[in-house]
Amino acid sequence: MNDLDKPHDECGVIAIYAPKEEVASIAYFGLFALQHRGQEAAGIAVSDGKVIHEHKDLGLVAQVFNPTILAKLPGHLAIGHTRYSTTGSSTLRNVQPFLIDTQHGPLAVAHNGNLVNAGALRKIILQKGVGLSASSDSALLTMMLAGATGDSWEERVKNTMPLWQGAYSLVFLTKDQVLAVRDPWGFRPLSVGQLPCGGYAIASESGSLQTIGCEQIREIQPGEIISLDARGLISLEGLPPAKKTARCTFEHIYFSRPDSVWDDLSVHQVRQHLGAELWRENPVAADIVIPVPDSSIPAAIGYAQASGIPYNDGFIKNRYIGRTFIQPTDSLRRQGVALKFNTLASNLKDKRVIVIDDSIVRGNTSGPLIKLLRKAGAREVHLCITCPPIAHPCFMGVDMGSCEELIAHRMSVDEIKNFIGCDSLYFLSLEGMMRAIGRNAGYCNACFTGNYPIAVDEMHTKTGFED
Amino acid sequence: MNDLDKPHDECGVIAIYAPKEEVASIAYFGLFALQHRGQEAAGIAVSDGKVIHEHKDLGLVAQVFNPTILAKLPGHLAIGHTRYSTTGSSTLRNVQPFLIDTQHGPLAVAHNGNLVNAGALRKIILQKGVGLSASSDSALLTMMLAGATGDSWEERVKNTMPLWQGAYSLVFLTKDQVLAVRDPWGFRPLSVGQLPCGGYAIASESGSLQTIGCEQIREIQPGEIISLDARGLISLEGLPPAKKTARCTFEHIYFSRPDSVWDDLSVHQVRQHLGAELWRENPVAADIVIPVPDSSIPAAIGYAQASGIPYNDGFIKNRYIGRTFIQPTDSLRRQGVALKFNTLASNLKDKRVIVIDDSIVRGNTSGPLIKLLRKAGAREVHLCITCPPIAHPCFMGVDMGSCEELIAHRMSVDEIKNFIGCDSLYFLSLEGMMRAIGRNAGYCNACFTGNYPIAVDEMHTKTGFED
Amino acid sequence: MNDLDKPHDECGVIAIYAPKEEVASIAYFGLFALQHRGQEAAGIAVSDGKVIHEHKDLGLVAQVFNPTILAKLPGHLAIGHTRYSTTGSSTLRNVQPFLIDTQHGPLAVAHNGNLVNAGALRKIILQKGVGLSASSDSALLTMMLAGATGDSWEERVKNTMPLWQGAYSLVFLTKDQVLAVRDPWGFRPLSVGQLPCGGYAIASESGSLQTIGCEQIREIQPGEIISLDARGLISLEGLPPAKKTARCTFEHIYFSRPDSVWDDLSVHQVRQHLGAELWRENPVAADIVIPVPDSSIPAAIGYAQASGIPYNDGFIKNRYIGRTFIQPTDSLRRQGVALKFNTLASNLKDKRVIVIDDSIVRGNTSGPLIKLLRKAGAREVHLCITCPPIAHPCFMGVDMGSCEELIAHRMSVDEIKNFIGCDSLYFLSLEGMMRAIGRNAGYCNACFTGNYPIAVDEMHTKTGFED
Amino acid sequence: MNDLDKPHDECGVIAIYAPKEEVASIAYFGLFALQHRGQEAAGIAVSDGKVIHEHKDLGLVAQVFNPTILAKLPGHLAIGHTRYSTTGSSTLRNVQPFLIDTQHGPLAVAHNGNLVNAGALRKIILQKGVGLSASSDSALLTMMLAGATGDSWEERVKNTMPLWQGAYSLVFLTKDQVLAVRDPWGFRPLSVGQLPCGGYAIASESGSLQTIGCEQIREIQPGEIISLDARGLISLEGLPPAKKTARCTFEHIYFSRPDSVWDDLSVHQVRQHLGAELWRENPVAADIVIPVPDSSIPAAIGYAQASGIPYNDGFIKNRYIGRTFIQPTDSLRRQGVALKFNTLASNLKDKRVIVIDDSIVRGNTSGPLIKLLRKAGAREVHLCITCPPIAHPCFMGVDMGSCEELIAHRMSVDEIKNFIGCDSLYFLSLEGMMRAIGRNAGYCNACFTGNYPIAVDEMHTKTGFED
Repeated sequence: MNDLDKPHDECGVIAIYAPKEEVASIAYFGLFALQHRGQEAAGIAVSDGKVIHEHKDLGLVAQVFNPTILAKLPGHLAIGHTRYSTTGSSTLRNVQPFLIDTQHGPLAVAHNGNLVNAGALRKIILQKGVGLSASSDSALLTMMLAGATGDSWEERVKNTMPLWQGAYSLVFLTKDQVLAVRDPWGFRPLSVGQLPCGGYAIASESGSLQTIGCEQIREIQPGEIISLDARGLISLEGLPPAKKTARCTFEHIYFSRPDSVWDDLSVHQVRQHLGAELWRENPVAADIVIPVPDSSIPAAIGYAQASGIPYNDGFIKNRYIGRTFIQPTDSLRRQGVALKFNTLASNLKDKRVIVIDDSIVRGNTSGPLIKLLRKAGAREVHLCITCPPIAHPCFMGVDMGSCEELIAHRMSVDEIKNFIGCDSLYFLSLEGMMRAIGRNAGYCNACFTGNYPIAVDEMHTKTGFED
Repeated sequence: MNDLDKPHDECGVIAIYAPKEEVASIAYFGLFALQHRGQEAAGIAVSDGKVIHEHKDLGLVAQVFNPTILAKLPGHLAIGHTRYSTTGSSTLRNVQPFLIDTQHGPLAVAHNGNLVNAGALRKIILQKGVGLSASSDSALLTMMLAGATGDSWEERVKNTMPLWQGAYSLVFLTKDQVLAVRDPWGFRPLSVGQLPCGGYAIASESGSLQTIGCEQIREIQPGEIISLDARGLISLEGLPPAKKTARCTFEHIYFSRPDSVWDDLSVHQVRQHLGAELWRENPVAADIVIPVPDSSIPAAIGYAQASGIPYNDGFIKNRYIGRTFIQPTDSLRRQGVALKFNTLASNLKDKRVIVIDDSIVRGNTSGPLIKLLRKAGAREVHLCITCPPIAHPCFMGVDMGSCEELIAHRMSVDEIKNFIGCDSLYFLSLEGMMRAIGRNAGYCNACFTGNYPIAVDEMHTKTGFED
Repeated sequence: MNDLDKPHDECGVIAIYAPKEEVASIAYFGLFALQHRGQEAAGIAVSDGKVIHEHKDLGLVAQVFNPTILAKLPGHLAIGHTRYSTTGSSTLRNVQPFLIDTQHGPLAVAHNGNLVNAGALRKIILQKGVGLSASSDSALLTMMLAGATGDSWEERVKNTMPLWQGAYSLVFLTKDQVLAVRDPWGFRPLSVGQLPCGGYAIASESGSLQTIGCEQIREIQPGEIISLDARGLISLEGLPPAKKTARCTFEHIYFSRPDSVWDDLSVHQVRQHLGAELWRENPVAADIVIPVPDSSIPAAIGYAQASGIPYNDGFIKNRYIGRTFIQPTDSLRRQGVALKFNTLASNLKDKRVIVIDDSIVRGNTSGPLIKLLRKAGAREVHLCITCPPIAHPCFMGVDMGSCEELIAHRMSVDEIKNFIGCDSLYFLSLEGMMRAIGRNAGYCNACFTGNYPIAVDEMHTKTGFED
Repeated sequence: MNDLDKPHDECGVIAIYAPKEEVASIAYFGLFALQHRGQEAAGIAVSDGKVIHEHKDLGLVAQVFNPTILAKLPGHLAIGHTRYSTTGSSTLRNVQPFLIDTQHGPLAVAHNGNLVNAGALRKIILQKGVGLSASSDSALLTMMLAGATGDSWEERVKNTMPLWQGAYSLVFLTKDQVLAVRDPWGFRPLSVGQLPCGGYAIASESGSLQTIGCEQIREIQPGEIISLDARGLISLEGLPPAKKTARCTFEHIYFSRPDSVWDDLSVHQVRQHLGAELWRENPVAADIVIPVPDSSIPAAIGYAQASGIPYNDGFIKNRYIGRTFIQPTDSLRRQGVALKFNTLASNLKDKRVIVIDDSIVRGNTSGPLIKLLRKAGAREVHLCITCPPIAHPCFMGVDMGSCEELIAHRMSVDEIKNFIGCDSLYFLSLEGMMRAIGRNAGYCNACFTGNYPIAVDEMHTKTGFED
């Protein structure tokens, strides 16, 4: 799906502790429900109380694991990871979980986020004469913990947290313990729930916990450390929550599964409200409201209910498109070969159409979609976006692209409209978006506003190591 | 997706003739849009006017082909095939297209359908001392054509058609010609369109032709033969259409893409009508209408519009489930690990829910879905099916399962309701279904009624050869 | 090993009947010992008395099969095949065993050889209106048997044999019987032995039968039919042996394993005699005799023993070169990158060296070998070949290359010597070769003499079908 | 080949510096010639002067690399590695080269050998609060260098060498330099040669350098550091050579390619001398001398020449046995299925046979070989081994097995003879072995004598990390 014009989240993490179970397969099913957060690589590390085994590779969860491999991962403690990354640095050595040996025994980590001071921390570690065997944050995080003071892993994590600036939703695995920690800003989500078999599971999204049957799911709080081991679930304050928490708004807009609950809000309902708010801010006279499937379906439903304009399908998405699919040549594209979406002329012909989409990033896919609708007979096409223009890159673990790549950095809304070729284009206002979410603070909107919640001391590019 | 309780179509076919193009990749993109009709195997045969090359293998279209393989399939004429079949006979030698050498040169075939007299025809061929190198109909069809009288391939096809009893939407490839033919009953769909590059394309569904940019798409008529070669498109009457044509109603209910047009009807609109008709026949007081995604979305939209009850999502389908995915053990299932669908408690809690589903075949998946909804807080769950109970197996190319496997063969509607555990269960009536389609004849409804349009002289099981 | 200058045999066959065993794995181990006869594809068909299952694919035996696949091949009767073929026709549909359904039940065949009248027979079959689904002889052979008269498979084979002109060592599998037959000329080898578990095995070479533990191994006679089933081993005369049998001399020279026995002769000993005879015909004064490993080792041993000149290694062959190995670019070759052979300067320096090689076909590898020896310090290099110059293509199942490709067709011995760059070049005489074998008749020497034992009515090229 | 009763070397290393070449493919061909030193995993790291790219995976060299992968490894400096290891620790994270980022830039290492004080060094590093991301020596070596003092990599290597106790033949890659170093004892081989294209290559064995066309090959001296970069080849004394060097005798006996030169001795000639010495120490009256192919061929040739007893083949080795080959079940073995070797009855029948083998480790394969010879008709079988009994494990990088596994640790020669079932068994004496080599000191014979050249402070087992 890599040519869709969407930001890319960089990871999904999971952790399981279940004293009487072989948890590798539970981790597998949980990871599977986090596949949308990273389709490039996957890994699971498991401990049986004595030895940590791990398996990880490039590919989808279903490609990386099979029953034979899972059978070689015995134990009742596990962490797992799905990874997205740009092609450049997509080498095996950056695939997580990342496992090292320390003076306190083995330690594995899986990470969702991005440390904005990774460059500085990296320099400090290297100047101590320590080598780092991966270019991602994970080697850095584990190496800092390996040398941290403290009598237990939770103390070492707690003692190291003040040094980490940026977004981190982390899970750790030691011989006999699972740890999870979320940065005090709460940039990226992380939830914990109870497994029906006894034990607990932690995952980037509550939707993943639902898939593996969890109950009593709650969010891990900003700054909170959770420990899972023979003592059960223990919660510590790692750091006090930031005065202004900075949850990623884009989790509501696009990243999270619609069946996830975050900040005590149903993501699906937030998206319905985003659609309703779009109508309130910008009521368009039209005959039909259609989503760009699948991510914009809830917002289109919300728009339709608020406006009374009938909801229907306009696009049919081809379901089997995978990473390895051959792309049509430019020549075939010009001849009309269009793989992602077909249109429904029967629903569109002579209609005034409102298309709901979640975001415009580079702006290269909206134009062809508008063209498909017109070819199918749509009389008018009005494109409504459930968030403001994205004009600033993200340094908290999301690949939005660079400034130059962001169309809203280069063009006004009117210029974008003309470039795309729709009859009208409307972006939801920042206020409208927050109104739809139902919160007036506590979120990071830096990609819309450029106001970064913490100072970004350097450009931490993903391929930093190779420079 | 093989554990979903759905009938399985047995094939999708495509054929391309484009004098100045390398058509293998067009065939590939067209096949890709037919992937839902067969996920077990795929193949393409191509002719450059002199030699036929082919490539076929078990797997999805995107797994069977890559750019290197497509580059080894040069030529401007092609046919292709996607195949579904039960595990038993899933051997490579039944994968299509099926290619033989004849006295008139090479001949390849791809077939969607099922000959009900295949057993008898097979016996006749074998008793002539001829061997058949595949157990599917394809070896039979080509062998009959190899020995047919006639001065051209279209004549030979025409002369052989009277012997074929049953469902056949066929495409043939010779050195310099593409042929397509549809049985006089018109059981299975087949359409032809013009390629923007010049030339023509034929596919099981118009949705596939849309994907490759076709215009002026029309259905190939029951009994019609289409020839594509240097003379352009030529249409012949192979056999006169049956007095009572017998299009498969299930193409409207479930098989066809919603963006396909068949019998001059938009499949998506027919499904909306099916939903509306369900409401008319059985108005249920409720708070929300939800589909079982993805196939029942149009019908749920139709139901909602007819009833005024709000349409919304209740299930979220996991998108990455593939054929090779590991299934949860029974023990994990009992603990609540549920891979296919998550639910949206925020939309369902304390609601009276109408669930629209297209069909119930074996009846083993509806129960768990109802349970998921109740667990998510639904107060009432009413299941409405967009067709009548399926009580009879299909002999025209669809794998419905045997009589014993069909739940409606063993149980009354009330018994099914209790078995599934919903508050009410309603199947659309035969009349309502035909009303929604907008035709009062011309369709095969044998799986509902047991009235087969042609006599089935024997049970033609798929593994017949090995017996 | 495809760039070595050697003729290619086209196949190895095996057949097993063992009433109380699962024979697929025995067939596998037997095929493995025939891998040298065909490295392009492999297949096994097995019957449990009721159903024939088969598995075949491109690749080495060890790549095509694994324990899971073997487990899906149940039964006590099996045939197997390893295949070599040129790239052009290396498609899956020519991979053997070839399985068809006939009026008498299923029939599978595996074939080593080549019918010289295949073109004519093919035409006859096609003109009857029968299609042939593979371009190799196997489809033809089975189709002829499917239509043959006779009350049993052995009768049908017997009745059809008179029509087959050329080389055929064949094994057949039916539901409950294994059959083997050898052409009356006896071109290609075929042996039968008793399995220690009870039952029998048949293989192209006795060396393969040794590997699977057989005892009382004997050759199947030219024209003999062997049947293996519940009645035990039955031998029939299919056709009387040809007055002049025509065993392939090259089986002794190069093809057969040195541990095989053929024509009641140990192949290793025949090769020793060939070396001894080379010395007798052409005694060269030298310090060391070395083989081109591995095929020429026995002849070099024989030469050394006859001459008293010390035997030693001069070349060390890299053992891990496989089909998929990357070849050095021409630029790297010019820089001395030489993958196949390293030299032993310690054995060669300042020595007069006799190199024994089995044959020169295209003549493109001998020159580089001579150069390697000179670079290692050899003072003189004398190349002795254990057979006469090959100047004529083979039509009996061996790929020697075409006339134009054969260096001895274009050049005199002296020209070849100069082209290769050795100090002397000697080819064993035809008489010397036959003296070493110990027979003065009964062998086909057409590749040396151009006297074909049966008229070749047309050039039966391997890619005939596609023309 | 893993069931052959042989010790396993743990690695082969290669390094290339060639200013105007793309060296990845040269490294590939060089590694290929080192495949016998490690068949479990392979890797290459390449620098273009700015960035280090690497690729490594489990599998043979020909499986791990293909042209697409090599094309993604641009640059004129490279190191490579082939790895053997026991199954237990065969995880991807121990595959080499091992690459880290340091304060001085990226550093990659490939290692052949074993540090006997790795456990102690590991503890020191860990107790500094540094984590180690692989359980092999490689992470340790690079981490020590990352923190070493010195203004250049050669200084840092020099300054760290005094801490390394044990066997190490190492190659390092930095952005713009290749380094190689050998421990002062000289346990494992390492040679350097000039490439015809300009530049230099370093490899574990000179045979590998011959394969890639090198000239002027010389051994890197014990304690020597070689630097290759824009300044050309620079040699430094890292440490003075040990007073008593301790080259591994087993490189002569078994590990090294016969075409390698080590300690200025041709390995092939040393093996011939070992055979001759065996005859001198233990002259046996016999009719034929045969090797256990391939490793014992030179010694058998030497024995034959010294004794005058004719040399010949007795075993024929199956050439296609690979790592993934299915093994016969015990039941099939009992029935005589024997994959590795066939015998030549024609050479063995009624003969008194001397079998030359290089070593006996666990003792489980000699018995079956003797049985095969007897079954082939051998009248007497005398087994002569080209080294003394191996009774002590190796801690210098060779997997001999543990004490308990070594048959000579548990049994006397006479007991072994009876266990194996030969008529006589003779092991070459330590003195005879050294006489054959032509040196009376400078070699490590600890596996025969138990006199380890350096104190082994702990059992450094390969799976130490996981304990």
